[in-house]
Amino acid sequence: MIVVPLIERKRDGGALSPEEWSALVAEYTAGRIPDYQIAALLMAVFIRGLERQELAALTDAMLASGDRLSFDGGSFKVPRIDKHSTGGVGDKVSLVLGPLVAACGIAVPMMSGRGLGHTGGTLDKLEAIPGFRTNLSLTEAKAQVQKLGCALIGQTAEIAPADRKLYALRDVTGTVESIPLIAASIMSKKLAEGLNGLVLDVKNGSGAFLPEVERGLELAKTMIALGEDRGCPTVALITAMDRPLGRACGNVLETEEAILALRGEGPADLLDVTYALGVEMLIQGGIEKNTKKARKKLETAIESGLAAEKFEQVIEAQGGNPNAVEDPSVLPQAQAVEVYAAARTGVVQRVEPRTIGRAIIALGGGRRTVEDIIDPTVGFVITVKPGDKVLEGEPIASVFAKDADGIRTGFDCLGQAIVIGDKLTQKPLPLVSHRVTRAGVEVLAKS
Amino acid sequence: MIVVPLIERKRDGGALSPEEWSALVAEYTAGRIPDYQIAALLMAVFIRGLERQELAALTDAMLASGDRLSFDGGSFKVPRIDKHSTGGVGDKVSLVLGPLVAACGIAVPMMSGRGLGHTGGTLDKLEAIPGFRTNLSLTEAKAQVQKLGCALIGQTAEIAPADRKLYALRDVTGTVESIPLIAASIMSKKLAEGLNGLVLDVKNGSGAFLPEVERGLELAKTMIALGEDRGCPTVALITAMDRPLGRACGNVLETEEAILALRGEGPADLLDVTYALGVEMLIQGGIEKNTKKARKKLETAIESGLAAEKFEQVIEAQGGNPNAVEDPSVLPQAQAVEVYAAARTGVVQRVEPRTIGRAIIALGGGRRTVEDIIDPTVGFVITVKPGDKVLEGEPIASVFAKDADGIRTGFDCLGQAIVIGDKLTQKPLPLVSHRVTRAGVEVLAKS
Repeated sequence: MIVVPLIERKRDGGALSPEEWSALVAEYTAGRIPDYQIAALLMAVFIRGLERQELAALTDAMLASGDRLSFDGGSFKVPRIDKHSTGGVGDKVSLVLGPLVAACGIAVPMMSGRGLGHTGGTLDKLEAIPGFRTNLSLTEAKAQVQKLGCALIGQTAEIAPADRKLYALRDVTGTVESIPLIAASIMSKKLAEGLNGLVLDVKNGSGAFLPEVERGLELAKTMIALGEDRGCPTVALITAMDRPLGRACGNVLETEEAILALRGEGPADLLDVTYALGVEMLIQGGIEKNTKKARKKLETAIESGLAAEKFEQVIEAQGGNPNAVEDPSVLPQAQAVEVYAAARTGVVQRVEPRTIGRAIIALGGGRRTVEDIIDPTVGFVITVKPGDKVLEGEPIASVFAKDADGIRTGFDCLGQAIVIGDKLTQKPLPLVSHRVTRAGVEVLAKS
Repeated sequence: MIVVPLIERKRDGGALSPEEWSALVAEYTAGRIPDYQIAALLMAVFIRGLERQELAALTDAMLASGDRLSFDGGSFKVPRIDKHSTGGVGDKVSLVLGPLVAACGIAVPMMSGRGLGHTGGTLDKLEAIPGFRTNLSLTEAKAQVQKLGCALIGQTAEIAPADRKLYALRDVTGTVESIPLIAASIMSKKLAEGLNGLVLDVKNGSGAFLPEVERGLELAKTMIALGEDRGCPTVALITAMDRPLGRACGNVLETEEAILALRGEGPADLLDVTYALGVEMLIQGGIEKNTKKARKKLETAIESGLAAEKFEQVIEAQGGNPNAVEDPSVLPQAQAVEVYAAARTGVVQRVEPRTIGRAIIALGGGRRTVEDIIDPTVGFVITVKPGDKVLEGEPIASVFAKDADGIRTGFDCLGQAIVIGDKLTQKPLPLVSHRVTRAGVEVLAKS
């Protein structure tokens, strides 16, 4: 196909037709358009944006490039709902939420990604469990969702191959942080899961992919429009990522904390975000009618042990050691652990998530390139939050590393990430600040 | 080198440092940066522009990527001056101007290009002369300039290889019509010629690369600043390209018309543009002090036969048949020729250069891709200009083609290109409208 006039039109601020987007994606995925032409087009899209119809056509074309999880035509009547997070540090919500809502009667075909950049990835956390397989085929995933109500898998080669190719090109051409391109990438994968509903966790604050709340709201609205227009009810919560979520940061450590949370012993902020997202899923799925009842149902699933049991079943079904839930010490453990103490008396002003995320990479627990092999055991447990008062010498964190060098690296990083001063200079963001639906934006808590 | 942060900075409207531009060009030319990253960067440059210092650094880096024609350190004291045209239809000025100013004591190391798109190229016109070699080495070209005062050559592999690579990428990524990228491309080649002066012919009107006069003026100013800052006095004339220049359009036909012009028999508009550019070259070279004397000198060189004789010498030195000047019928001739008559009585409103340029391609006389082999004999001779009164049935053009099919194609194209109406609806542009120097813009004739 003749690509240059299409690049020129987008470059000059014009729009491409749905047929043109469809042909571009199909031909590129088939290897019949060179990377350099799509790189130029992506940069033009980054700067000029996409009209609503163009974004819809691009998303549909990416979705159409691969297979879908199809539950239609069968007897499977359980509502299928997934959650997507734009990513953060310490964000192990998926590991808690998937089994939890499955225990409440929702089917969760949850397809997650790996960590790249400063943010972690659910797949890496799951694979910290010895034996856990995330590379199920679509057929296996479907069977498991129908049997257990939950499968925790990676993006298979069958799902939206156009997205995989486009994302890899965006990553090396400076065209990642574009709202329409992010929205198309996320929604083309989520819509392939055959969902009846979708809840989005859009992070806000310095550790988020898009730190400004306005940009997060725009992304939320964009994804909601895409979902709703394709028959998938979609709702978004804006949640805080100006500090890590929970206490644990690092793959094994986060998996342990997720297990604790499923047993009712998790940190309050992690549970609150999980409940807020779970409530939306239960209401979307018609399991409960209102927030209060839905929250109660989630709490009960944890207290009764049903949620933890569901996670055990999922781990076993996917080849992992289910004893991890009973006894997290079966997970691989770091060689070196040291307690980090406050250097002065005062108030914690900031726990900077990007610094923590980059520190995990420095310790070998995150990726610089997609080929990197990670050490799942390293990371941090940080027991203070912005606003907490601390005394000089008081233990406020632990570093988990491979060796003494790693401990030193971790201490240096914590020294930069945890800022202690005389008083709080910046109010922490509300944990869940906005709820966004097709109808509009509801402010839940003011920052 | 790490390219993505540089792409991101340019994408967001920032500037790259001279060192960064230098490294980017060197690494790309050496094949160490992939096309897709430079494609994204070029699109960002297209949309965001380049600051003056960035453009200078880019041009210098492109210039530094190859060799230069060096006349320094020798005993060769003749002023070396070249002309560059942004390209048009029927623009055979170089063939006339090179020998003409050389006959007046200027040394002209003239490096030209091939036709691509709707505009013709000087190399194709020269190669219409049987045996003519345009692929001289830099050493050969230098020797010929020193001996004859003129060499008419193509861009060698030794000159600005970065430009060749970047231009090829721009051509397939919709990033051609960018003023800074055009300016850097032209000036990196021209500054490699070791010039003491440069005259630019910037075309204006519907057949020009940049049709709007404001854009042409901006390009002229940009190139003048680049030249002057590098010690090469540069001046530009804005000339009309709302109709073809002269009567002949097509390679052999234009070479014939250039020979006629060198013998004093050329069409008035072709001679006027040639004289206007030649005057600037003679004054830049210190041959004459003012326009009137310079013009007289040029006229005398034609009347005396010295200019035509110089062209014969150049043709002979470059392996062509010098009899072409005495007897243009030694040039290859089209198989089929037919006269085209006015379809109605009235006034010629337009002779659309882009339509003529594309018609030459349709007849096989121009390129769709750089690999195309062209038929030099095809084209048009159009004897009317906008504003001329014509009678129904009056011959106003001739079509030169390969066969009867070509004649029909040519007739169809002329029917679209030559518009005859009751009266002139749009005033033709002045032939030479502006003179641009470092000091500013002088309006020579109002449109």
